[in-house]
Amino acid sequence: MTTLLLSSHALRVWGERIAAAVPPGTLSFLTAEAALAADGPGAADIAFMTREVTGKSSPGNLTPELQGFDAVVLKSPNLKWLQIHPAGAERPIYRELRARGVKVTTASGATAVTVAHSTLGAVIAINRRFPLLADAQRRHAWEPRLGERSPRDLAGQCAVIVGMGPIGQNIARLLAMLGMRAIGVRRTAEPVEPCERVVAYEQLHQVLPEADWLILCCPASPVTRGIANAAAFAAMPDGAHFVNVARGEVAVENDVIAALQSGKLGGAYLDVFEREPLDPASPLWDLPNVLVSPHTASHSLGQNEAIFGIFLENLARFRAGQALRNDVDRLG
Amino acid sequence: MTTLLLSSHALRVWGERIAAAVPPGTLSFLTAEAALAADGPGAADIAFMTREVTGKSSPGNLTPELQGFDAVVLKSPNLKWLQIHPAGAERPIYRELRARGVKVTTASGATAVTVAHSTLGAVIAINRRFPLLADAQRRHAWEPRLGERSPRDLAGQCAVIVGMGPIGQNIARLLAMLGMRAIGVRRTAEPVEPCERVVAYEQLHQVLPEADWLILCCPASPVTRGIANAAAFAAMPDGAHFVNVARGEVAVENDVIAALQSGKLGGAYLDVFEREPLDPASPLWDLPNVLVSPHTASHSLGQNEAIFGIFLENLARFRAGQALRNDVDRLG
Repeated sequence: MTTLLLSSHALRVWGERIAAAVPPGTLSFLTAEAALAADGPGAADIAFMTREVTGKSSPGNLTPELQGFDAVVLKSPNLKWLQIHPAGAERPIYRELRARGVKVTTASGATAVTVAHSTLGAVIAINRRFPLLADAQRRHAWEPRLGERSPRDLAGQCAVIVGMGPIGQNIARLLAMLGMRAIGVRRTAEPVEPCERVVAYEQLHQVLPEADWLILCCPASPVTRGIANAAAFAAMPDGAHFVNVARGEVAVENDVIAALQSGKLGGAYLDVFEREPLDPASPLWDLPNVLVSPHTASHSLGQNEAIFGIFLENLARFRAGQALRNDVDRLG
Repeated sequence: MTTLLLSSHALRVWGERIAAAVPPGTLSFLTAEAALAADGPGAADIAFMTREVTGKSSPGNLTPELQGFDAVVLKSPNLKWLQIHPAGAERPIYRELRARGVKVTTASGATAVTVAHSTLGAVIAINRRFPLLADAQRRHAWEPRLGERSPRDLAGQCAVIVGMGPIGQNIARLLAMLGMRAIGVRRTAEPVEPCERVVAYEQLHQVLPEADWLILCCPASPVTRGIANAAAFAAMPDGAHFVNVARGEVAVENDVIAALQSGKLGGAYLDVFEREPLDPASPLWDLPNVLVSPHTASHSLGQNEAIFGIFLENLARFRAGQALRNDVDRLG
């Protein structure tokens, strides 16, 4: 008998389908809520940490739900595998578990299409000045932008995309459909379709003078932390645009604010922040042509289903003793 | 010597390039403002009616600029050709001029890419609930939409696109890259790539039960007028979405409002209205998940250039005695 730890919400939503995926009597469920109430060593062999457990937390601000789930996981001496829902496994607890021999698997790939769609929509929205239209709409004001105040055409504009994983590649493909050029930035300068060229992170500043758009969709790491800073924005054309669907710490938030306030940046789509939820006192909320999105670029009904699909696939692999998909140790 | 009528704004922006496109001494300029002040019969042989002349007018509400330009055109007995900037030539004055033998040419095609980009951005924005995010942003409120309140994935959704001209075909191609299905609606049921099928206007109601999106981008005509009405919305799935980048009169505005208020429609992108500017008292301004756009879906710097390109091409054809491009009489 294998014991699966999950939230009571996940049990309600997915329990029946999980039970149907394994032979009867081989899997039992343990909710994090029940384990917390019992307060002894946890009986979990495997765990599925779903979106609503971590959804409202950020590095600087762990919700009670997440703290509780973390506590149960850490007190489960038999834990062998933890499936998480994000594409990245940066939280220190994952390193700690892996050091103990627990396999940690991500949902990398499940988010790529949805995040790329959100980014595409945001690029067009920022280019077309939808936030300014929304402001005029709220005032019941008809304010067409005529003549030379019209937006520049997207066709021919250049996007520098930092991060060439599944999300970055999807974004590059979608922007290419609009006639935009893409330059990729990643660990090494290997070519990636359909980018016209790819440079290494260290060479970012060489390509920034071409960047009508700087789009962050890379993992947070010592190399990428703070990569979008005042010097980077200064190297871009005046009025360029900025998108962050990576992690808050990949940008220096005060530098983003200053560049938007000075007009160096002409607009931004920000889905992630240094501290989440974003401080109600942050100037970002009120800057013109900025879309503040509450870390939801990846949310969709189908995306939850895609994450669940990765969990089910890994459950079958785990039971068969096979290598797991998206194993953080094997990804390096 | 040919005399070209245009606005003083157009003369300022385009005059030099127009003069450079013809042999010296063969073309003179007459501004509408000067002709109006002179108040006699107009000397214009040809006319270029640019965006800023008609930009703020609508069928129910002609601006003084447009009334003035119309008056000069009507008082120009030698007028042989009028180039206009929209894709459609529905205004009665164009019929009157054509009856007099004046060639009226549109900028059909010049707007297609920009309008399709605007529509793509709006479809994603409405799907991802950007208007609700903008509302939360204004309140400095962090309101992620988690779990079962997440948006549905666009992949697999079906768009019924009414109008299969350059705009409709571009929209169908862009939505296809998101994994969406497209059904085209046009005068005849001839197939159009990449629509999975095409039906005639009269068969619209047969395909509406599949329409997660109803997108209007057809000419206004006796056949299409009021085609998006209460009966059409009733035939669509609950919570479906609506886009109008055609003409205000293709939809019944009160029916749109009622369908949005009842929740039958889950959101809308409206770039055109029965009367423009939209009445400040219209309920549309305040409906949730509705983007009110001031008839600017086609505006872009490059689009003005594309319209000017059509004018220059037609100027060369006119001078050579050749058939004009986008001649309304020849389009039928």
